[in-house]
Amino acid sequence: MPELRRDPILSRWVIIATERAKRPSDFKQEEAGAPSAFCPFCEGNEGKTPPEIMACREEGTAPDTPGWRVRVVPNKFPALGIDGNLEKRGIGVYDRMRGVGAHEVIIETPKHERSLTGLDVGRVREVLAVYRDRMRDLKKDDRLHYGMLFKNVGVAAGASLEHTHSQLIVTPVVPRTPMQEMAGCKSFYDYRGRCLFCDMIYQEMDTEQRVVVSNDAFVAFAPYASRFPFEMWIVGKRHESHFEDIRDDEIDALSALLREALVRLERALPGAPYNYIVHTAPFNMSGIKHYHWHIEIIPRLTKVAGFEWGTGFYINPVPPESAAEFLREVEL
Amino acid sequence: MPELRRDPILSRWVIIATERAKRPSDFKQEEAGAPSAFCPFCEGNEGKTPPEIMACREEGTAPDTPGWRVRVVPNKFPALGIDGNLEKRGIGVYDRMRGVGAHEVIIETPKHERSLTGLDVGRVREVLAVYRDRMRDLKKDDRLHYGMLFKNVGVAAGASLEHTHSQLIVTPVVPRTPMQEMAGCKSFYDYRGRCLFCDMIYQEMDTEQRVVVSNDAFVAFAPYASRFPFEMWIVGKRHESHFEDIRDDEIDALSALLREALVRLERALPGAPYNYIVHTAPFNMSGIKHYHWHIEIIPRLTKVAGFEWGTGFYINPVPPESAAEFLREVEL
Repeated sequence: MPELRRDPILSRWVIIATERAKRPSDFKQEEAGAPSAFCPFCEGNEGKTPPEIMACREEGTAPDTPGWRVRVVPNKFPALGIDGNLEKRGIGVYDRMRGVGAHEVIIETPKHERSLTGLDVGRVREVLAVYRDRMRDLKKDDRLHYGMLFKNVGVAAGASLEHTHSQLIVTPVVPRTPMQEMAGCKSFYDYRGRCLFCDMIYQEMDTEQRVVVSNDAFVAFAPYASRFPFEMWIVGKRHESHFEDIRDDEIDALSALLREALVRLERALPGAPYNYIVHTAPFNMSGIKHYHWHIEIIPRLTKVAGFEWGTGFYINPVPPESAAEFLREVEL
Repeated sequence: MPELRRDPILSRWVIIATERAKRPSDFKQEEAGAPSAFCPFCEGNEGKTPPEIMACREEGTAPDTPGWRVRVVPNKFPALGIDGNLEKRGIGVYDRMRGVGAHEVIIETPKHERSLTGLDVGRVREVLAVYRDRMRDLKKDDRLHYGMLFKNVGVAAGASLEHTHSQLIVTPVVPRTPMQEMAGCKSFYDYRGRCLFCDMIYQEMDTEQRVVVSNDAFVAFAPYASRFPFEMWIVGKRHESHFEDIRDDEIDALSALLREALVRLERALPGAPYNYIVHTAPFNMSGIKHYHWHIEIIPRLTKVAGFEWGTGFYINPVPPESAAEFLREVEL
């Protein structure tokens, strides 16, 4: 069982894999990331993953056999384990608990596609509905407090397999970044009585400079203080703090918008590694007026150097106004 | 002149290079980082850098000519510019100011060494004294509030030249991470009346599990909640909030300890990219009882994926107790 440790200075939690510690010689220098011939996520190889948690599959097909469209399995090398209690304790100035939580993989298609954009909108919709359903299910476990959905595309963005997939990690503590996002939004709300994200999308829709694409329910834009070149955020027009409370008609709108935003990114920057992350409110709060769930899409084109790590201060060589213009001009 | 923009949610500042925006096609996929034949930092090539700000040089030699041991020059592609005023203003929910600040490069030796460890302790001492002197000098400019010294080693850690060097970026705002470190330490101090770092090194010296090397004035240890495999922090035994207030005898002790810590790291992990960053208090505070300057050394062995970016929550496959043991066992 891994261990969760808290840095007392920044209240930053770290998952320490205490079982099989890597030796210095285990860290080889960066490999080219050549795709191996065998893919455990392809249809027919269901036996090479842990047994499925759920799947969207043809009627009459058995679990862990072909016939699925989206399949959710536990991560084979999970960062957290689902069994047992937390055993919280202090060790001098430090805090620890057992690494209880969930780490699931959402395999988005049985075919060996490298990107979610290889799926049509209807299939993307099914993937997003699975995101929501897994969040709702894990939220019932009262040891767990925060669910994070994310996707890594490309070796440099942390992907170890190229077959398109997403991950869900659910933790027994609220991580630092969402806690700080909520604190920032709370202080804006306390002063102005409005949601900061609602104000922000109003301003973005009004000036249009940084908008990449929008529809009735969502807008994708390059944020004013983009950390990374071609960074994009997708924010809903209806105020809602929790991703898992997304409505069915909003899933339709989001599928189309997310797919188009990624197509634009992939055409503007062929082969670029990227991550996207769903930022949402903690499980044990509900209907918060000051926080607004959203998706952050982060292309990984620049190296993050000492300066960024030391300060949380980023240098971005592409103004978001230019980035949005490039992305808008992509031919579809 | 670049622009500083503030993210209203996290109060995160970003430097946006507004002059020569890169186009999507400027971002090529990762190159092998082959060292080019020509090095602008080598002795004899002084004309290939901007004019020197200061240097430790043989008596009677002229600026920007050979005869130096350590040389400080402005960065040729500075993230911030030193002239003009800040022109702070708000744009709806956002904040901006002009990118006023300093961005200097400290060239640590005239010879083409790839690491600070290629220098003997006396020469490392001279480099650290230059760090202190540049901080003291820039602190006099009352537009500037925070100085950050850092080093990038290896392409994957953000280094664009292999000749050993450090950088100093001085900003007109206090960045987010040091602000949060100070807030965390302040709340510990308010409750317990002691410095958190002083408590931490007392505990580390007592248990010894995570200590890599120590001397009379400093201790290098793998922090309890290490984010990265083989992460090391160097903390002074005397409480001091500002790096630039380091005493001469402490520079002696730090030179020996920093050099040894890096030698151990480089022998345990040959060729590994790494960063180190001096974490210190803002210029406009002095003698703070709750904050303690220190150096964080971060090997860059693992990819930072979507999970870490979205949450500030790290997964580390090497417990710091094991990392410290490996580093202690390195033969010198």
